[in-house]
Amino acid sequence: MSSDLATADSPVLAVARRAREAAAALAPLPRGVKDAALRAVADALVARAAEITAANAEDVERARAAGTAESVIDRLTLTEERIAAIAADVRDVAGLPDPVGEVVRGYTLPNGLDVRQVRVPLGVVGIIYEARPNVTVDAAALCLKSGNAVLLRGSASAYRSNTALVAVLRDAVAAAGLPADAVQLVPGESRDSVRELMRARGLVDVLIPRGGASLIRTVVEGSTVPVIETGTGNCHVYVDAEADLAMAVGILLNSKAQRVSVCNAAETLLVHQDVADAFLPLALAALAEAGVTVHGDDAVLKAAEGTAATVLPATDEDWEAEYLSYDIAAAVVPSLDAAVAHIRRWTSGHTEAIVTTSQAAARRFTRLVDSTTVAVNASTRFTDGGEFGFGAEIGISTQKLHARGPMGLPELTSTKYIVTGDGHVRGEATPTVGAGADAR
Amino acid sequence: MSSDLATADSPVLAVARRAREAAAALAPLPRGVKDAALRAVADALVARAAEITAANAEDVERARAAGTAESVIDRLTLTEERIAAIAADVRDVAGLPDPVGEVVRGYTLPNGLDVRQVRVPLGVVGIIYEARPNVTVDAAALCLKSGNAVLLRGSASAYRSNTALVAVLRDAVAAAGLPADAVQLVPGESRDSVRELMRARGLVDVLIPRGGASLIRTVVEGSTVPVIETGTGNCHVYVDAEADLAMAVGILLNSKAQRVSVCNAAETLLVHQDVADAFLPLALAALAEAGVTVHGDDAVLKAAEGTAATVLPATDEDWEAEYLSYDIAAAVVPSLDAAVAHIRRWTSGHTEAIVTTSQAAARRFTRLVDSTTVAVNASTRFTDGGEFGFGAEIGISTQKLHARGPMGLPELTSTKYIVTGDGHVRGEATPTVGAGADAR
Repeated sequence: MSSDLATADSPVLAVARRAREAAAALAPLPRGVKDAALRAVADALVARAAEITAANAEDVERARAAGTAESVIDRLTLTEERIAAIAADVRDVAGLPDPVGEVVRGYTLPNGLDVRQVRVPLGVVGIIYEARPNVTVDAAALCLKSGNAVLLRGSASAYRSNTALVAVLRDAVAAAGLPADAVQLVPGESRDSVRELMRARGLVDVLIPRGGASLIRTVVEGSTVPVIETGTGNCHVYVDAEADLAMAVGILLNSKAQRVSVCNAAETLLVHQDVADAFLPLALAALAEAGVTVHGDDAVLKAAEGTAATVLPATDEDWEAEYLSYDIAAAVVPSLDAAVAHIRRWTSGHTEAIVTTSQAAARRFTRLVDSTTVAVNASTRFTDGGEFGFGAEIGISTQKLHARGPMGLPELTSTKYIVTGDGHVRGEATPTVGAGADAR
Repeated sequence: MSSDLATADSPVLAVARRAREAAAALAPLPRGVKDAALRAVADALVARAAEITAANAEDVERARAAGTAESVIDRLTLTEERIAAIAADVRDVAGLPDPVGEVVRGYTLPNGLDVRQVRVPLGVVGIIYEARPNVTVDAAALCLKSGNAVLLRGSASAYRSNTALVAVLRDAVAAAGLPADAVQLVPGESRDSVRELMRARGLVDVLIPRGGASLIRTVVEGSTVPVIETGTGNCHVYVDAEADLAMAVGILLNSKAQRVSVCNAAETLLVHQDVADAFLPLALAALAEAGVTVHGDDAVLKAAEGTAATVLPATDEDWEAEYLSYDIAAAVVPSLDAAVAHIRRWTSGHTEAIVTTSQAAARRFTRLVDSTTVAVNASTRFTDGGEFGFGAEIGISTQKLHARGPMGLPELTSTKYIVTGDGHVRGEATPTVGAGADAR
């Protein structure tokens, strides 16, 4: 830790320092202790639901007075029923395996030294998120389970709700014998507190921004604390020259329209020219029926002539768009490689699907496409920690470092090596290939 | 990729864009092709050694004229013999297993979807390093083997050497059928080129700074590209109340003095008060004989009275110092927990050793100490990719994200998920615990 940070004075740095202390106490705790605390949190949320809904009502009232959209107000609103569901989620987290202590690699060296690489908590995790107060509890539960202290920075519009929730969480955690500072709200409703959090390298181990593209970009570009970039999804469905067209329609519809506001929904359709004449009429009819507006290239516009489909001419903005709405961009491509090139040029790197009956095409597409998830004959909507069987998810990483794709509990850990000997000392340097000669 | 970066004009961004193209071509290559290219590189280095040593001689001459220290000039100097050794290292890298394609996790979901998490290259790796030109070749070989394109930014003092080496590498790589732009030197000898590299997020996937603390801090604090922090080592040796004192002297001496200029050398000795009277005379005599100056607390100063040992009073600067010299800080502590607290306060998080005969003490120390490596009854000097049996090392990460401790070839990879079905579409949202409800 740099000594500047250890002594600098600011409310945000003060909570970060307390989080660091709490993290040291949390790290060695066995699963049983952490799970008991999580169950105590679940009980307390239910027992104090009235207090939480009262605070939430103030946030909702202010949001309404400010003319906030009803969909946002819906996400902001907590009822006793929703709190019970959040509490049930916390109990589910208690039931998940503890990643801490897992031996990732273990072996004995020729000289008899035992080497074990063991999972340990990251330490202090900062979550920066938008209106939904359920994230406050979910993120805290996942961090506690993985032995991390959490710093929560929700949106100003949910400040009263989050304050009430965190008060309940801290009381329950402390009553269970854990440090209350394992769960802290970052003080301050202004953007300054986010900026301070972003500069707390050495106190905070990782920041996970969850929300809109502009929030994520701000954190990624301004943070000296390591960041895990999450969430933006410009996902593609490619229908290959050899494809079961009925299957392709099903996958397209599910990827686009089963739920449009989510990061793993499809935003672009690419169709191989050999099946365009057969497939586009089916696809356009199905999309029209689902209420989806198509933003097409010339070939798609032509196919739509005289049909009921709404097709507008696509621009580069459409190829890049994450619509999160009943819209899809669509183009006809001359080859699988052209589809791959289009994807590489425009994707946010989240999820791309191919529909094909050809083993060679599936193999080439999965090898050449470089996104968190490549789906073969399956909807893009499966990219999700729950669907993948992780039982929990803190977000979906779209970067390559540390974690990529849905992040479960193991992704909230680091590792350390434990090397055990009988007085082993090192002789002459073992020949080591590589740039690490510093350590030889 | 942000469209700003795709079109912005600068020599550094231009090489980064070419690296990105090269990375796309490298990623799907099978091991045989990459290994053949590495063997061609080794052959070319030997065949063109005269050309390389001629360029190196110019760098050496300039360094000498500038009054550079002989130890630095020694590290800068390339001879035909050293080039042959570097070429042999490249052949060794060709012999290592390929991490790309490894299935990290693979399972079938209840709905029949097959999920495979597979290792893929990171993409474009930037290495920023100091004088040693051998790093140029080592880093390029490790990146090529792991399917990554590499951007090399060595020190200005080795610019001619690095230019000659990279010319040989690019010719050999291209002759083997790989894109020459898989290996590129970052143009420009000024700090501006480092700054541009640090802002090339979206084009460069990771930066690994290797060198002094100030270089690393500059990159960590100014980079929007994800960084892996390497190398600073303020390593501790703790001698427990229950310890074999002869073993403790051996481990102390080896940790401190087997080689002092390396990041895994010990910089602080902590002694439990119960063995201080018995151990300190042995330790001080051994350190004195090895020519090590001790910076001690009051108890150590007192123990040194009337002995041949050189002991100076320690200040906070000593507890924090990475000496990389024949110096060690030393303190007596009242308990194992006090040793842990001292370490947590001052360590750079590299490697800490305990010498103990107590199973309980070993267990507590390994659980509470949070550094890349904890050694029990073994020298701190074992924290090294070669010693750990990795066969290669790109550096030692002292951060918690992505990689921690010695980094071998797998640490130069990311993963992607491949999900394979038979037309699978998603029904109602599976209950997913966690903050990832964005994807539900």
